[in-house]
Amino acid sequence: MEPASKLIVRSEGEGAGLSDDPSHLAARVAIDVAGTDRLAITVRSQIPIARGLGSSAALAVAAAAAAGAADPLAVAATVDGHPDNAAASMVGGLVAAARVKGGVQAVRLPLDVSLVFVIIVPDVTLSTARSRQALPTQVSRESAAFNLSRMALLIAGLADSRLLISEATEDRLHQDYRSPLFPAAPKLLAGLSAGGALAVCWSGAGPSLVGICKGTQSHQVREGAEAALAEAGVPGVVLELRPDLHGLILDRDGSAGLYDFDAGA
Amino acid sequence: MEPASKLIVRSEGEGAGLSDDPSHLAARVAIDVAGTDRLAITVRSQIPIARGLGSSAALAVAAAAAAGAADPLAVAATVDGHPDNAAASMVGGLVAAARVKGGVQAVRLPLDVSLVFVIIVPDVTLSTARSRQALPTQVSRESAAFNLSRMALLIAGLADSRLLISEATEDRLHQDYRSPLFPAAPKLLAGLSAGGALAVCWSGAGPSLVGICKGTQSHQVREGAEAALAEAGVPGVVLELRPDLHGLILDRDGSAGLYDFDAGA
Repeated sequence: MEPASKLIVRSEGEGAGLSDDPSHLAARVAIDVAGTDRLAITVRSQIPIARGLGSSAALAVAAAAAAGAADPLAVAATVDGHPDNAAASMVGGLVAAARVKGGVQAVRLPLDVSLVFVIIVPDVTLSTARSRQALPTQVSRESAAFNLSRMALLIAGLADSRLLISEATEDRLHQDYRSPLFPAAPKLLAGLSAGGALAVCWSGAGPSLVGICKGTQSHQVREGAEAALAEAGVPGVVLELRPDLHGLILDRDGSAGLYDFDAGA
Repeated sequence: MEPASKLIVRSEGEGAGLSDDPSHLAARVAIDVAGTDRLAITVRSQIPIARGLGSSAALAVAAAAAAGAADPLAVAATVDGHPDNAAASMVGGLVAAARVKGGVQAVRLPLDVSLVFVIIVPDVTLSTARSRQALPTQVSRESAAFNLSRMALLIAGLADSRLLISEATEDRLHQDYRSPLFPAAPKLLAGLSAGGALAVCWSGAGPSLVGICKGTQSHQVREGAEAALAEAGVPGVVLELRPDLHGLILDRDGSAGLYDFDAGA
Protein backbone atom coordinates (compact mmCIF):
# COMPACT_ATOMS: atom_id res chain seq x y z
CA MET A 1 0.00 0.00 0.00
CA GLU A 2 1.40 3.35 -1.03
CA PRO A 3 0.19 6.96 -1.20
CA ALA A 4 -1.21 7.84 -4.63
CA SER A 5 -3.16 10.64 -6.31
CA LYS A 6 -6.27 8.45 -6.43
CA LEU A 7 -7.40 4.97 -5.50
CA ILE A 8 -5.77 2.21 -7.50
CA VAL A 9 -6.48 -1.44 -6.70
CA ARG A 10 -4.47 -4.23 -8.30
CA SER A 11 -4.90 -7.87 -7.44
CA GLU A 12 -2.90 -11.01 -8.15
CA GLY A 13 -3.37 -14.67 -7.35
CA GLU A 14 -6.62 -15.87 -5.83
CA GLY A 15 -9.44 -13.40 -6.44
CA ALA A 16 -7.41 -11.47 -9.04
CA GLY A 17 -9.51 -9.00 -10.99
CA LEU A 18 -12.77 -9.83 -9.23
CA SER A 19 -13.33 -6.30 -7.89
CA ASP A 20 -10.39 -3.98 -8.55
CA ASP A 21 -12.32 -0.90 -7.41
CA PRO A 22 -13.47 0.79 -4.17
CA SER A 23 -15.69 -2.20 -3.41
CA HIS A 24 -12.65 -4.45 -2.92
CA LEU A 25 -12.47 -5.54 0.71
CA ALA A 26 -8.85 -4.37 0.96
CA ALA A 27 -9.82 -0.93 -0.34
CA ARG A 28 -12.77 -0.61 2.02
CA VAL A 29 -10.65 -1.53 5.04
CA ALA A 30 -7.71 0.65 4.01
CA ILE A 31 -9.83 3.71 3.27
CA ASP A 32 -11.60 3.32 6.56
CA VAL A 33 -8.34 3.07 8.50
CA ALA A 34 -6.33 5.67 6.55
CA GLY A 35 -9.18 8.15 6.24
CA THR A 36 -8.33 8.75 2.58
CA ASP A 37 -8.80 6.95 -0.72
CA ARG A 38 -5.55 8.29 -2.18
CA LEU A 39 -3.96 4.89 -2.04
CA ALA A 40 -2.38 2.46 -4.45
CA ILE A 41 -3.20 -1.01 -3.16
CA THR A 42 -1.72 -4.24 -4.45
CA VAL A 43 -3.30 -7.45 -3.20
CA ARG A 44 -1.60 -10.81 -3.61
CA SER A 45 -3.44 -13.77 -2.18
CA GLN A 46 -2.92 -17.51 -2.23
CA ILE A 47 -6.10 -18.24 -0.28
CA PRO A 48 -9.03 -19.51 -2.36
CA ILE A 49 -12.09 -17.28 -1.93
CA ALA A 50 -15.50 -18.31 -0.56
CA ARG A 51 -14.32 -21.83 0.28
CA GLY A 52 -14.48 -21.63 4.08
CA LEU A 53 -10.77 -20.86 4.34
CA GLY A 54 -10.99 -17.44 5.97
CA SER A 55 -9.63 -15.51 3.00
CA SER A 56 -11.56 -12.33 3.73
CA ALA A 57 -10.47 -12.15 7.37
CA ALA A 58 -6.84 -12.67 6.33
CA LEU A 59 -7.15 -9.91 3.74
CA ALA A 60 -8.84 -7.56 6.19
CA VAL A 61 -6.08 -8.05 8.79
CA ALA A 62 -3.35 -7.42 6.19
CA ALA A 63 -5.11 -4.38 4.71
CA ALA A 64 -5.76 -2.84 8.12
CA ALA A 65 -2.13 -3.31 9.13
CA ALA A 66 -0.78 -1.93 5.87
CA ALA A 67 -3.00 1.12 6.27
CA GLY A 68 -1.52 1.75 9.71
CA ALA A 69 -4.23 0.45 12.04
CA ALA A 70 -3.10 0.30 15.67
CA ASP A 71 -5.20 -2.82 16.21
CA PRO A 72 -5.63 -4.67 12.88
CA LEU A 73 -7.39 -7.54 14.64
CA ALA A 74 -10.16 -5.31 15.97
CA VAL A 75 -10.62 -3.66 12.57
CA ALA A 76 -10.73 -6.95 10.70
CA ALA A 77 -13.14 -8.57 13.17
CA THR A 78 -15.49 -5.61 12.87
CA VAL A 79 -15.41 -5.37 9.07
CA ASP A 80 -15.36 -9.09 8.33
CA GLY A 81 -17.42 -10.30 11.28
CA HIS A 82 -15.28 -13.35 12.06
CA PRO A 83 -13.03 -12.68 15.06
CA ASP A 84 -11.83 -16.31 15.05
CA ASN A 85 -10.53 -16.14 11.50
CA ALA A 86 -9.06 -12.68 12.02
CA ALA A 87 -7.28 -13.79 15.21
CA ALA A 88 -5.73 -16.81 13.51
CA SER A 89 -4.49 -14.60 10.66
CA MET A 90 -3.10 -12.03 13.07
CA VAL A 91 -1.39 -14.31 15.57
CA GLY A 92 -0.62 -17.50 13.61
CA GLY A 93 -0.65 -21.00 14.98
CA LEU A 94 -3.66 -22.33 16.86
CA VAL A 95 -5.69 -19.54 18.36
CA ALA A 96 -8.74 -19.29 20.59
CA ALA A 97 -10.66 -16.08 20.06
CA ALA A 98 -13.81 -14.49 21.36
CA ARG A 99 -15.43 -11.10 21.36
CA VAL A 100 -15.12 -9.69 24.86
CA LYS A 101 -16.10 -6.22 26.02
CA GLY A 102 -16.45 -5.03 22.44
CA GLY A 103 -12.92 -6.10 21.53
CA VAL A 104 -11.43 -9.40 20.45
CA GLN A 105 -9.45 -11.53 22.84
CA ALA A 106 -7.03 -13.90 21.09
CA VAL A 107 -5.09 -16.51 23.01
CA ARG A 108 -2.60 -18.93 21.52
CA LEU A 109 -2.96 -22.64 22.18
CA PRO A 110 -0.15 -25.18 21.83
CA LEU A 111 0.07 -26.77 18.40
CA ASP A 112 2.00 -29.86 17.38
CA VAL A 113 3.98 -28.54 14.41
CA SER A 114 4.41 -32.05 13.03
CA LEU A 115 0.76 -31.97 11.94
CA VAL A 116 -0.09 -31.39 8.30
CA PHE A 117 -3.50 -30.19 7.19
CA VAL A 118 -4.63 -31.71 3.92
CA ILE A 119 -7.35 -29.50 2.46
CA ILE A 120 -9.79 -30.45 -0.25
CA VAL A 121 -10.74 -27.22 -2.04
CA PRO A 122 -13.68 -28.01 -4.32
CA ASP A 123 -14.14 -25.81 -7.34
CA VAL A 124 -17.52 -24.65 -6.08
CA THR A 125 -18.21 -21.75 -3.78
CA LEU A 126 -20.53 -21.50 -0.79
CA SER A 127 -21.15 -18.10 0.68
CA THR A 128 -20.78 -18.10 4.44
CA ALA A 129 -24.14 -16.35 4.69
CA ARG A 130 -25.92 -19.07 2.71
CA SER A 131 -24.08 -21.80 4.55
CA ARG A 132 -25.07 -20.22 7.83
CA GLN A 133 -28.72 -20.09 6.80
CA ALA A 134 -28.69 -23.87 6.55
CA LEU A 135 -28.15 -24.07 10.29
CA PRO A 136 -30.99 -24.35 12.81
CA THR A 137 -31.39 -21.46 15.21
CA GLN A 138 -31.96 -23.90 18.09
CA VAL A 139 -29.94 -26.98 18.95
CA SER A 140 -30.36 -29.52 21.70
CA ARG A 141 -28.46 -29.02 24.94
CA GLU A 142 -27.03 -32.49 24.42
CA SER A 143 -25.62 -31.47 21.05
CA ALA A 144 -24.03 -28.38 22.56
CA ALA A 145 -22.45 -30.48 25.33
CA PHE A 146 -21.38 -33.08 22.76
CA ASN A 147 -19.43 -30.51 20.76
CA LEU A 148 -17.91 -29.01 23.91
CA SER A 149 -16.43 -32.37 24.89
CA ARG A 150 -15.08 -32.89 21.36
CA MET A 151 -13.59 -29.39 21.37
CA ALA A 152 -11.53 -30.35 24.41
CA LEU A 153 -10.41 -33.60 22.78
CA LEU A 154 -9.48 -31.68 19.63
CA ILE A 155 -7.42 -29.08 21.48
CA ALA A 156 -5.55 -31.90 23.24
CA GLY A 157 -4.95 -33.70 19.94
CA LEU A 158 -3.76 -30.58 18.14
CA ALA A 159 -1.24 -30.00 20.94
CA ASP A 160 0.09 -33.55 20.66
CA SER A 161 -0.64 -35.59 17.56
CA ARG A 162 -0.27 -38.82 19.55
CA LEU A 163 -3.50 -37.87 21.35
CA LEU A 164 -5.46 -36.98 18.22
CA ILE A 165 -8.35 -39.38 17.65
CA SER A 166 -11.00 -39.31 14.97
CA GLU A 167 -13.73 -38.60 17.52
CA ALA A 168 -12.10 -35.24 18.27
CA THR A 169 -13.78 -33.73 15.21
CA GLU A 170 -17.18 -35.34 15.66
CA ASP A 171 -19.84 -32.67 15.34
CA ARG A 172 -23.56 -32.24 15.91
CA LEU A 173 -23.86 -28.51 15.34
CA HIS A 174 -23.19 -27.76 11.71
CA GLN A 175 -21.74 -30.37 9.34
CA ASP A 176 -24.82 -32.52 8.82
CA TYR A 177 -26.95 -29.41 8.27
CA ARG A 178 -24.55 -28.12 5.65
CA SER A 179 -24.12 -31.37 3.77
CA PRO A 180 -27.22 -30.81 1.58
CA LEU A 181 -25.46 -27.71 0.18
CA PHE A 182 -22.51 -29.92 -0.80
CA PRO A 183 -23.72 -33.51 -0.98
CA ALA A 184 -20.29 -34.91 -1.93
CA ALA A 185 -18.86 -33.84 1.44
CA PRO A 186 -19.34 -37.11 3.38
CA LYS A 187 -17.62 -39.16 0.65
CA LEU A 188 -14.76 -36.69 0.39
CA LEU A 189 -14.29 -36.73 4.16
CA ALA A 190 -14.24 -40.52 3.99
CA GLY A 191 -11.53 -40.26 1.34
CA LEU A 192 -9.36 -38.19 3.64
CA SER A 193 -9.84 -40.75 6.43
CA ALA A 194 -9.13 -43.65 4.08
CA GLY A 195 -5.83 -42.01 3.16
CA GLY A 196 -4.82 -41.99 6.81
CA ALA A 197 -6.03 -38.68 8.22
CA LEU A 198 -6.29 -38.87 12.02
CA ALA A 199 -9.38 -36.65 12.08
CA VAL A 200 -11.47 -34.92 9.42
CA CYS A 201 -13.95 -32.04 9.33
CA TRP A 202 -15.36 -29.17 7.32
CA SER A 203 -13.21 -26.06 7.08
CA GLY A 204 -15.36 -23.32 8.55
CA ALA A 205 -18.60 -23.00 6.62
CA GLY A 206 -17.22 -25.12 3.77
CA PRO A 207 -17.13 -26.37 1.13
CA SER A 208 -13.43 -27.00 1.84
CA LEU A 209 -12.71 -30.09 3.88
CA VAL A 210 -9.78 -30.77 6.21
CA GLY A 211 -7.87 -33.93 6.99
CA ILE A 212 -5.47 -33.57 9.92
CA CYS A 213 -2.55 -35.95 9.68
CA LYS A 214 1.02 -36.66 10.62
CA GLY A 215 3.59 -35.26 8.20
CA THR A 216 4.69 -38.76 7.24
CA GLN A 217 1.13 -39.55 6.09
CA SER A 218 0.27 -36.37 4.24
CA HIS A 219 1.12 -37.54 0.73
CA GLN A 220 -1.00 -40.63 1.20
CA VAL A 221 -3.87 -38.57 2.60
CA ARG A 222 -3.58 -36.24 -0.37
CA GLU A 223 -3.75 -39.17 -2.76
CA GLY A 224 -6.80 -40.51 -0.94
CA ALA A 225 -8.45 -37.11 -1.26
CA GLU A 226 -7.64 -36.80 -4.94
CA ALA A 227 -9.04 -40.25 -5.60
CA ALA A 228 -12.24 -39.33 -3.73
CA LEU A 229 -12.60 -36.08 -5.70
CA ALA A 230 -12.21 -37.99 -8.96
CA GLU A 231 -14.67 -40.67 -7.90
CA ALA A 232 -17.24 -38.08 -6.83
CA GLY A 233 -16.77 -36.20 -10.10
CA VAL A 234 -16.11 -32.97 -8.19
CA PRO A 235 -13.55 -30.60 -9.71
CA GLY A 236 -11.11 -29.17 -7.19
CA VAL A 237 -7.60 -29.22 -5.80
CA VAL A 238 -6.00 -30.76 -2.74
CA LEU A 239 -3.47 -28.77 -0.70
CA GLU A 240 -1.00 -30.03 1.89
CA LEU A 241 -0.56 -27.21 4.37
CA ARG A 242 1.67 -26.81 7.38
CA PRO A 243 0.46 -24.38 10.00
CA ASP A 244 1.82 -20.86 9.77
CA LEU A 245 3.31 -19.80 13.11
CA HIS A 246 4.11 -16.19 12.18
CA GLY A 247 0.77 -14.53 11.64
CA LEU A 248 0.87 -10.94 10.49
CA ILE A 249 4.21 -9.65 9.24
CA LEU A 250 4.59 -5.90 8.73
CA ASP A 251 7.49 -4.99 6.48
CA ARG A 252 9.46 -1.77 6.88
CA ASP A 253 8.39 -0.60 3.45
CA GLY A 254 4.80 -0.35 4.66
CA SER A 255 3.54 -3.56 3.14
CA ALA A 256 1.79 -6.05 5.36
CA GLY A 257 1.18 -9.67 4.80
CA LEU A 258 0.59 -13.06 6.19
CA TYR A 259 3.27 -15.66 5.85
CA ASP A 260 3.05 -17.56 2.58
CA PHE A 261 1.44 -20.89 3.10
CA ASP A 262 2.99 -23.97 1.64
CA ALA A 263 0.84 -25.16 -1.21
CA GLY A 264 2.55 -28.54 -1.24
CA ALA A 265 4.90 -30.22 -3.65
CA MET B 1 -11.55 -53.81 50.25
CA GLU B 2 -10.98 -57.31 51.59
CA PRO B 3 -12.59 -60.74 51.28
CA ALA B 4 -15.10 -61.38 54.05
CA SER B 5 -17.78 -63.89 54.96
CA LYS B 6 -20.50 -61.36 54.13
CA LEU B 7 -20.84 -57.77 52.96
CA ILE B 8 -19.62 -55.18 55.44
CA VAL B 9 -19.59 -51.49 54.54
CA ARG B 10 -17.89 -48.93 56.77
CA SER B 11 -17.58 -45.28 55.91
CA GLU B 12 -15.56 -42.40 57.30
CA GLY B 13 -15.30 -38.73 56.45
CA GLU B 14 -17.73 -37.17 54.01
CA GLY B 15 -20.86 -39.27 53.63
CA ALA B 16 -20.02 -41.38 56.69
CA GLY B 17 -22.91 -43.57 57.82
CA LEU B 18 -25.30 -42.37 55.14
CA SER B 19 -25.83 -45.83 53.64
CA ASP B 20 -23.55 -48.49 55.12
CA ASP B 21 -25.36 -51.31 53.34
CA PRO B 22 -25.64 -52.94 49.89
CA SER B 23 -27.13 -49.71 48.53
CA HIS B 24 -23.85 -47.85 49.07
CA LEU B 25 -22.38 -46.85 45.72
CA ALA B 26 -19.03 -48.44 46.61
CA ALA B 27 -20.79 -51.72 47.44
CA ARG B 28 -22.84 -51.73 44.27
CA VAL B 29 -19.78 -51.10 42.10
CA ALA B 30 -17.60 -53.61 43.97
CA ILE B 31 -20.20 -56.39 43.92
CA ASP B 32 -20.77 -55.84 40.24
CA VAL B 33 -17.05 -56.01 39.46
CA ALA B 34 -16.10 -58.79 41.89
CA GLY B 35 -19.16 -60.90 41.21
CA THR B 36 -19.62 -61.55 44.93
CA ASP B 37 -20.87 -59.66 47.96
CA ARG B 38 -18.44 -61.36 50.32
CA LEU B 39 -16.51 -58.16 50.79
CA ALA B 40 -15.50 -55.88 53.63
CA ILE B 41 -15.44 -52.37 52.23
CA THR B 42 -14.07 -49.32 53.99
CA VAL B 43 -14.78 -45.97 52.38
CA ARG B 44 -12.90 -42.83 53.39
CA SER B 45 -13.82 -39.69 51.52
CA GLN B 46 -12.91 -36.03 51.81
CA ILE B 47 -15.20 -34.97 48.98
CA PRO B 48 -18.46 -33.34 50.04
CA ILE B 49 -21.46 -35.19 48.61
CA ALA B 50 -24.12 -33.78 46.25
CA ARG B 51 -22.33 -30.45 45.89
CA GLY B 52 -21.29 -30.69 42.25
CA LEU B 53 -17.81 -31.89 43.16
CA GLY B 54 -17.91 -35.29 41.48
CA SER B 55 -17.80 -37.33 44.69
CA SER B 56 -19.76 -40.27 43.31
CA ALA B 57 -17.58 -40.63 40.20
CA ALA B 58 -14.45 -40.53 42.36
CA LEU B 59 -15.90 -43.19 44.64
CA ALA B 60 -16.97 -45.36 41.72
CA VAL B 61 -13.49 -45.25 40.17
CA ALA B 62 -11.84 -46.15 43.47
CA ALA B 63 -14.32 -48.95 44.25
CA ALA B 64 -14.03 -50.44 40.77
CA ALA B 65 -10.24 -50.43 40.98
CA ALA B 66 -10.17 -51.91 44.49
CA ALA B 67 -12.50 -54.68 43.31
CA GLY B 68 -10.10 -55.52 40.51
CA ALA B 69 -11.75 -53.96 37.47
CA ALA B 70 -9.52 -54.02 34.40
CA ASP B 71 -10.94 -50.66 33.29
CA PRO B 72 -12.17 -48.72 36.34
CA LEU B 73 -12.94 -45.70 34.19
CA ALA B 74 -15.38 -47.59 31.99
CA VAL B 75 -17.09 -49.13 35.04
CA ALA B 76 -17.40 -45.82 36.84
CA ALA B 77 -18.68 -43.97 33.80
CA THR B 78 -21.34 -46.62 33.26
CA VAL B 79 -22.50 -46.80 36.88
CA ASP B 80 -22.26 -43.10 37.68
CA GLY B 81 -23.12 -41.70 34.27
CA HIS B 82 -20.50 -38.94 34.28
CA PRO B 83 -17.51 -39.91 32.14
CA ASP B 84 -15.96 -36.47 32.58
CA ASN B 85 -15.88 -36.73 36.37
CA ALA B 86 -14.72 -40.34 36.26
CA ALA B 87 -11.91 -39.51 33.83
CA ALA B 88 -10.63 -36.66 36.00
CA SER B 89 -10.63 -38.97 39.04
CA MET B 90 -8.86 -41.72 37.14
CA VAL B 91 -6.20 -39.70 35.36
CA GLY B 92 -5.71 -36.61 37.52
CA GLY B 93 -4.87 -33.13 36.29
CA LEU B 94 -6.95 -31.49 33.59
CA VAL B 95 -8.72 -34.06 31.47
CA ALA B 96 -10.92 -33.98 28.39
CA ALA B 97 -13.27 -36.93 28.21
CA ALA B 98 -16.00 -38.16 25.94
CA ARG B 99 -17.94 -41.32 25.35
CA VAL B 100 -16.70 -42.81 22.12
CA LYS B 101 -17.63 -46.15 20.61
CA GLY B 102 -19.26 -47.24 23.86
CA GLY B 103 -16.11 -46.58 25.90
CA VAL B 104 -14.67 -43.46 27.47
CA GLN B 105 -11.79 -41.64 25.87
CA ALA B 106 -9.80 -39.54 28.33
CA VAL B 107 -7.05 -37.21 27.20
CA ARG B 108 -4.90 -35.09 29.45
CA LEU B 109 -4.59 -31.38 28.79
CA PRO B 110 -1.76 -29.17 30.04
CA LEU B 111 -2.44 -27.56 33.41
CA ASP B 112 -0.57 -24.70 35.05
CA VAL B 113 0.19 -26.18 38.47
CA SER B 114 0.56 -22.73 39.99
CA LEU B 115 -3.22 -22.37 39.85
CA VAL B 116 -5.25 -22.79 43.02
CA PHE B 117 -8.96 -23.55 42.97
CA VAL B 118 -10.90 -21.86 45.75
CA ILE B 119 -14.17 -23.71 46.21
CA ILE B 120 -17.22 -22.42 48.03
CA VAL B 121 -19.06 -25.49 49.35
CA PRO B 122 -22.46 -24.33 50.59
CA ASP B 123 -24.12 -26.41 53.27
CA VAL B 124 -27.04 -27.18 50.97
CA THR B 125 -27.30 -30.02 48.51
CA LEU B 126 -28.55 -30.04 44.94
CA SER B 127 -29.05 -33.36 43.26
CA THR B 128 -27.51 -33.47 39.82
CA ALA B 129 -30.81 -34.83 38.49
CA ARG B 130 -32.78 -31.89 39.85
CA SER B 131 -30.15 -29.41 38.75
CA ARG B 132 -30.22 -30.92 35.29
CA GLN B 133 -34.02 -30.62 35.10
CA ALA B 134 -33.62 -26.86 35.43
CA LEU B 135 -31.89 -26.78 32.08
CA PRO B 136 -33.73 -26.21 28.80
CA THR B 137 -33.69 -29.07 26.34
CA GLN B 138 -33.02 -26.64 23.49
CA VAL B 139 -30.48 -23.84 23.37
CA SER B 140 -29.70 -21.32 20.67
CA ARG B 141 -26.94 -22.10 18.21
CA GLU B 142 -25.34 -18.80 19.21
CA SER B 143 -25.21 -19.91 22.85
CA ALA B 144 -23.59 -23.20 21.85
CA ALA B 145 -20.98 -21.35 19.78
CA PHE B 146 -20.49 -18.83 22.60
CA ASN B 147 -19.60 -21.59 25.06
CA LEU B 148 -17.34 -23.32 22.53
CA SER B 149 -15.24 -20.17 22.13
CA ARG B 150 -15.05 -19.75 25.91
CA MET B 151 -14.04 -23.40 26.32
CA ALA B 152 -11.03 -22.74 24.10
CA LEU B 153 -10.11 -19.61 26.08
CA LEU B 154 -10.46 -21.57 29.32
CA ILE B 155 -8.24 -24.43 28.18
CA ALA B 156 -5.59 -21.89 27.14
CA GLY B 157 -5.86 -20.11 30.50
CA LEU B 158 -5.68 -23.31 32.52
CA ALA B 159 -2.49 -24.25 30.65
CA ASP B 160 -0.91 -20.87 31.41
CA SER B 161 -2.33 -18.69 34.16
CA ARG B 162 -0.99 -15.57 32.47
CA LEU B 163 -3.56 -16.17 29.72
CA LEU B 164 -6.52 -16.77 32.03
CA ILE B 165 -9.13 -14.03 31.71
CA SER B 166 -12.49 -13.74 33.42
CA GLU B 167 -14.34 -14.17 30.11
CA ALA B 168 -12.95 -17.71 29.84
CA THR B 169 -15.68 -18.96 32.19
CA GLU B 170 -18.54 -16.97 30.70
CA ASP B 171 -21.45 -19.31 30.09
CA ARG B 172 -24.82 -19.30 28.37
CA LEU B 173 -25.73 -22.96 28.74
CA HIS B 174 -26.33 -23.72 32.40
CA GLN B 175 -25.44 -21.26 35.14
CA ASP B 176 -28.24 -18.75 34.69
CA TYR B 177 -30.77 -21.59 34.48
CA ARG B 178 -29.51 -23.11 37.70
CA SER B 179 -29.33 -19.90 39.70
CA PRO B 180 -33.02 -20.06 40.77
CA LEU B 181 -32.17 -23.31 42.58
CA PHE B 182 -29.44 -21.47 44.49
CA PRO B 183 -30.21 -17.75 44.37
CA ALA B 184 -27.13 -16.75 46.37
CA ALA B 185 -24.82 -18.02 43.61
CA PRO B 186 -24.29 -14.75 41.69
CA LYS B 187 -23.28 -12.87 44.85
CA LEU B 188 -20.98 -15.66 45.98
CA LEU B 189 -19.33 -15.74 42.55
CA ALA B 190 -18.89 -11.98 42.79
CA GLY B 191 -17.22 -12.51 46.18
CA LEU B 192 -14.68 -14.86 44.62
CA SER B 193 -13.96 -12.31 41.90
CA ALA B 194 -13.68 -9.46 44.41
CA GLY B 195 -11.07 -11.47 46.28
CA GLY B 196 -8.95 -11.66 43.17
CA ALA B 197 -10.03 -14.84 41.37
CA LEU B 198 -9.04 -14.68 37.70
CA ALA B 199 -12.18 -16.52 36.60
CA VAL B 200 -15.21 -17.95 38.42
CA CYS B 201 -17.90 -20.52 37.66
CA TRP B 202 -20.20 -23.16 39.06
CA SER B 203 -18.62 -26.50 39.89
CA GLY B 204 -20.50 -28.98 37.75
CA ALA B 205 -24.20 -28.91 38.55
CA GLY B 206 -23.57 -26.91 41.75
CA PRO B 207 -24.17 -25.63 44.31
CA SER B 208 -20.39 -25.46 44.82
CA LEU B 209 -18.70 -22.51 43.17
CA VAL B 210 -15.13 -22.22 41.92
CA GLY B 211 -12.71 -19.31 41.84
CA ILE B 212 -9.56 -20.01 39.83
CA CYS B 213 -6.61 -17.98 41.03
CA LYS B 214 -2.85 -17.74 41.28
CA GLY B 215 -1.37 -19.36 44.36
CA THR B 216 -0.26 -16.00 45.70
CA GLN B 217 -3.86 -14.79 45.67
CA SER B 218 -5.63 -17.81 47.09
CA HIS B 219 -5.82 -16.68 50.72
CA GLN B 220 -7.31 -13.37 49.67
CA VAL B 221 -9.80 -15.11 47.39
CA ARG B 222 -10.76 -17.41 50.23
CA GLU B 223 -11.34 -14.44 52.51
CA GLY B 224 -13.47 -12.78 49.84
CA ALA B 225 -15.51 -15.96 49.54
CA GLU B 226 -15.95 -16.30 53.31
CA ALA B 227 -17.09 -12.69 53.54
CA ALA B 228 -19.59 -13.27 50.73
CA LEU B 229 -20.94 -16.42 52.43
CA ALA B 230 -21.39 -14.50 55.68
CA GLU B 231 -23.06 -11.58 53.95
CA ALA B 232 -25.42 -13.86 52.05
CA GLY B 233 -26.25 -15.73 55.26
CA VAL B 234 -25.41 -19.05 53.61
CA PRO B 235 -23.75 -21.70 55.80
CA GLY B 236 -20.83 -23.43 54.16
CA VAL B 237 -17.07 -23.81 53.94
CA VAL B 238 -14.41 -22.53 51.61
CA LEU B 239 -11.62 -24.84 50.42
CA GLU B 240 -8.32 -23.91 48.79
CA LEU B 241 -7.44 -26.81 46.50
CA ARG B 242 -4.43 -27.50 44.36
CA PRO B 243 -5.00 -29.83 41.43
CA ASP B 244 -4.22 -33.49 41.99
CA LEU B 245 -1.88 -34.76 39.29
CA HIS B 246 -1.85 -38.42 40.34
CA GLY B 247 -5.36 -39.67 39.77
CA LEU B 248 -6.06 -43.23 40.81
CA ILE B 249 -3.47 -44.91 43.02
CA LEU B 250 -3.73 -48.66 43.53
CA ASP B 251 -1.84 -49.91 46.57
CA ARG B 252 -0.27 -53.36 46.72
CA ASP B 253 -2.50 -54.31 49.62
CA GLY B 254 -5.52 -54.12 47.34
CA SER B 255 -6.80 -50.77 48.45
CA ALA B 256 -7.41 -48.13 45.86
CA GLY B 257 -7.74 -44.45 46.28
CA LEU B 258 -7.43 -41.04 44.81
CA TYR B 259 -4.71 -38.78 46.04
CA ASP B 260 -5.74 -36.81 49.12
CA PHE B 261 -6.70 -33.34 48.19
CA ASP B 262 -5.33 -30.41 50.13
CA ALA B 263 -8.14 -28.94 52.17
CA GLY B 264 -6.12 -25.78 52.81
CA ALA B 265 -4.55 -24.34 55.92
